[in-house]
Amino acid sequence: MSTAQPRILDVRTRIVKDNDRVARNLRQRFDDAGAFVVSLVSSPGAGKTTFLQKTLTELRPKYRVAALVGDLATENDAQRLAQSGAPVRQIVTGTVCHLEAEMVEKAIGDWNLAEIDILFIENVGNLVCPSSYDLGEHLRLVLLSTPEGEDKPLKYPTIFNTADIAVLTKMDIAEAVGFDRSAAVASIESVRPGMKIIDASSRAVGGLDAWLAELEGRLAARRAS
Amino acid sequence: MSTAQPRILDVRTRIVKDNDRVARNLRQRFDDAGAFVVSLVSSPGAGKTTFLQKTLTELRPKYRVAALVGDLATENDAQRLAQSGAPVRQIVTGTVCHLEAEMVEKAIGDWNLAEIDILFIENVGNLVCPSSYDLGEHLRLVLLSTPEGEDKPLKYPTIFNTADIAVLTKMDIAEAVGFDRSAAVASIESVRPGMKIIDASSRAVGGLDAWLAELEGRLAARRAS
Repeated sequence: MSTAQPRILDVRTRIVKDNDRVARNLRQRFDDAGAFVVSLVSSPGAGKTTFLQKTLTELRPKYRVAALVGDLATENDAQRLAQSGAPVRQIVTGTVCHLEAEMVEKAIGDWNLAEIDILFIENVGNLVCPSSYDLGEHLRLVLLSTPEGEDKPLKYPTIFNTADIAVLTKMDIAEAVGFDRSAAVASIESVRPGMKIIDASSRAVGGLDAWLAELEGRLAARRAS
Repeated sequence: MSTAQPRILDVRTRIVKDNDRVARNLRQRFDDAGAFVVSLVSSPGAGKTTFLQKTLTELRPKYRVAALVGDLATENDAQRLAQSGAPVRQIVTGTVCHLEAEMVEKAIGDWNLAEIDILFIENVGNLVCPSSYDLGEHLRLVLLSTPEGEDKPLKYPTIFNTADIAVLTKMDIAEAVGFDRSAAVASIESVRPGMKIIDASSRAVGGLDAWLAELEGRLAARRAS
């Protein structure tokens, strides 16, 4: 687009290659330790932290869970997530609009991965930048909240293409915001045919049951393999 | 954070300097032509396009308005905005998470700026990347929608610091989503004391009146100076 693009793209390509190498090593460490790693991406305000807070709370009686959470400027999310009682660490990225594998590696620090069943990684709220960075995770969720509109998958196709499951959040206010679920599903299908789609509400009783069942199924399949 | 940061920062600094030069030239062209230029930034789904569509429709009987709209992958927004009857052009950015001044310059192309009273520029939905790029605009709005949560200004301070007015959108569903307006105002105040804050609803009758009055006031003051 501008004359500057080729230059920044060259640098980006090199950074992404470096990142992929760190991410591959991380994934090997997670596998060796038997830790299942799930990352979350979405636009700001789609409900990642609330979704994760409830997920941690529901899983804690049965699993050893932990979380890393990325943000530009605050440690608020880590404080919110820590209310679940799970170990949580914040990654402050400064002006960087995404997490990188090396940030994850440093944040894990001295944690003993063998004592973690499921590690969650909440990315910076952004539908563009995180898509190019492998974090060594086994499962990537992209959250789409009902107030955002049904067209977001068409406008941000890469993030949907690099994720494994689309979670439709804030379904409890779907009617109030005029959310058209079939239009959203059609948008997702058009950029990623056959993508698994799960409805969720962090405020409704049982609102995460479908997600938790899916997660437990994947965890069981992994352990059996 | 990673060893890659200094490299990408060097390149970014150079690109931003190039951008600022193009932006300064653009602003001079806008001033010479008497065109008032307003840009909009927000996270994806905060309601930029609907807000702009209604703004264009309301202004058209009194002003010559036009719009440029940036997106990664689709021309949907331009089609929606064109329903207002105003001239609209789409800027497709590919994988770039923000607009740059040169993209704006190219998109304007053969438009006669002297025939435009107000030009709107809708940036890519992103609370990080657009903050560093001057587009030659006179007024930058940052939109914060009620479902996103009151803490967004704390988590994305730079975008609030580079904007002139914060618009609280989707106020018609504030109660349904449990939006705490005073907490949002406190967040904005803590990153940008004294920032002008305007409540808006694109769905409610008269929901943009405060914004339109503010805009007309600024336009009148500009013409009088």
